[in-house]
Amino acid sequence: MPYVNIKLTGGSEAPTAAQKAELIQEVTALLSRVLNKNPETTVVVIDEVDMDNWGIGGKTVTVRRKIK
Amino acid sequence: MPYVNIKLTGGSEAPTAAQKAELIQEVTALLSRVLNKNPETTVVVIDEVDMDNWGIGGKTVTVRRKIK
Amino acid sequence: MPYVNIKLTGGSEAPTAAQKAELIQEVTALLSRVLNKNPETTVVVIDEVDMDNWGIGGKTVTVRRKIK
Amino acid sequence: MPYVNIKLTGGSEAPTAAQKAELIQEVTALLSRVLNKNPETTVVVIDEVDMDNWGIGGKTVTVRRKIK
Amino acid sequence: MPYVNIKLTGGSEAPTAAQKAELIQEVTALLSRVLNKNPETTVVVIDEVDMDNWGIGGKTVTVRRKIK
Amino acid sequence: MPYVNIKLTGGSEAPTAAQKAELIQEVTALLSRVLNKNPETTVVVIDEVDMDNWGIGGKTVTVRRKIK
Repeated sequence: MPYVNIKLTGGSEAPTAAQKAELIQEVTALLSRVLNKNPETTVVVIDEVDMDNWGIGGKTVTVRRKIK
Repeated sequence: MPYVNIKLTGGSEAPTAAQKAELIQEVTALLSRVLNKNPETTVVVIDEVDMDNWGIGGKTVTVRRKIK
Repeated sequence: MPYVNIKLTGGSEAPTAAQKAELIQEVTALLSRVLNKNPETTVVVIDEVDMDNWGIGGKTVTVRRKIK
Repeated sequence: MPYVNIKLTGGSEAPTAAQKAELIQEVTALLSRVLNKNPETTVVVIDEVDMDNWGIGGKTVTVRRKIK
Repeated sequence: MPYVNIKLTGGSEAPTAAQKAELIQEVTALLSRVLNKNPETTVVVIDEVDMDNWGIGGKTVTVRRKIK
Repeated sequence: MPYVNIKLTGGSEAPTAAQKAELIQEVTALLSRVLNKNPETTVVVIDEVDMDNWGIGGKTVTVRRKIK
């Protein structure tokens, strides 16, 4: 019955459909293995966030990628 | 003063603008009726999630719709 | 398959268990009626937030209730 | 180590990249100043929400903007 | 840089501290393995939700556990 | 009309009521100053998260504080 929300950067860093399917399968299996949660009612939602809209260390990811 | 977030599948399953307006009106009315919450400060945010980004039962909705 | 998160004030303003059950039942029915969503996989999570931790108009609810 | 999520209206009301960078910088600085939180691990995510998908007072922002 | 939020039932169904540590470790490793995300800036937040506050199929978990 | 959610560690690291009131006031003022958002309808919700339930770098904050 768990609900999992994964936020990560989108745009040029967005995961492929296959990677998202793998994430969903593996997170669901992990919750079943560690906590015995029922996979049938485990929900996973992935949000892809624009690099202008994600900040860490006081800077957007857009700016951080340029500095690197 | 409540805040309500509704996540549902978008893309070909996305609700119309009229359906979203109805959801917002009805959820706001429900919180007023059941809990006496002030409709004027009740906030509702609807997120439409890509079917590749929503998983249940360890599979994306994209894959589940194909199986059906 | 929708996921609904309702945040409201807790503490002395917390809803009763019966009110929470009614909210969950009614929100689920609303999504079924307006959008034809399957009630069996509709998830609703209610968060009760301390009145010191909720702000509107730049003030905590604790302060606003005293002013009233 | 805080995580901050800011939801606001997008579309014609969307903030510019410069405004989003300023928000991220200032929120991070605020958490450092008030709570002594480490800016390096402070994460800020901004969600821009379609005006059809945001409701307040039981109406979508789209409808409210027309009434005004 | 991902942010992961896991919501699950608390109270008598709450995970132990060791199980939560394992979840955090494994989800972080999964994002590193599948998407090459930097573990050092991967954030995981677990919310334990009261069984009266979690609904699925229109019923609270409290009620569902009694029916079973 | 923005909605802001701030998650930070609670327990022995929890902010005081005065600090939370300051955060709410300042975040609301920031959104008014940078984006001209109406303070009256700006909502801020602070979540205090147990140090066993917050992970970064694959470890809980509880474990990280011991290592330091």
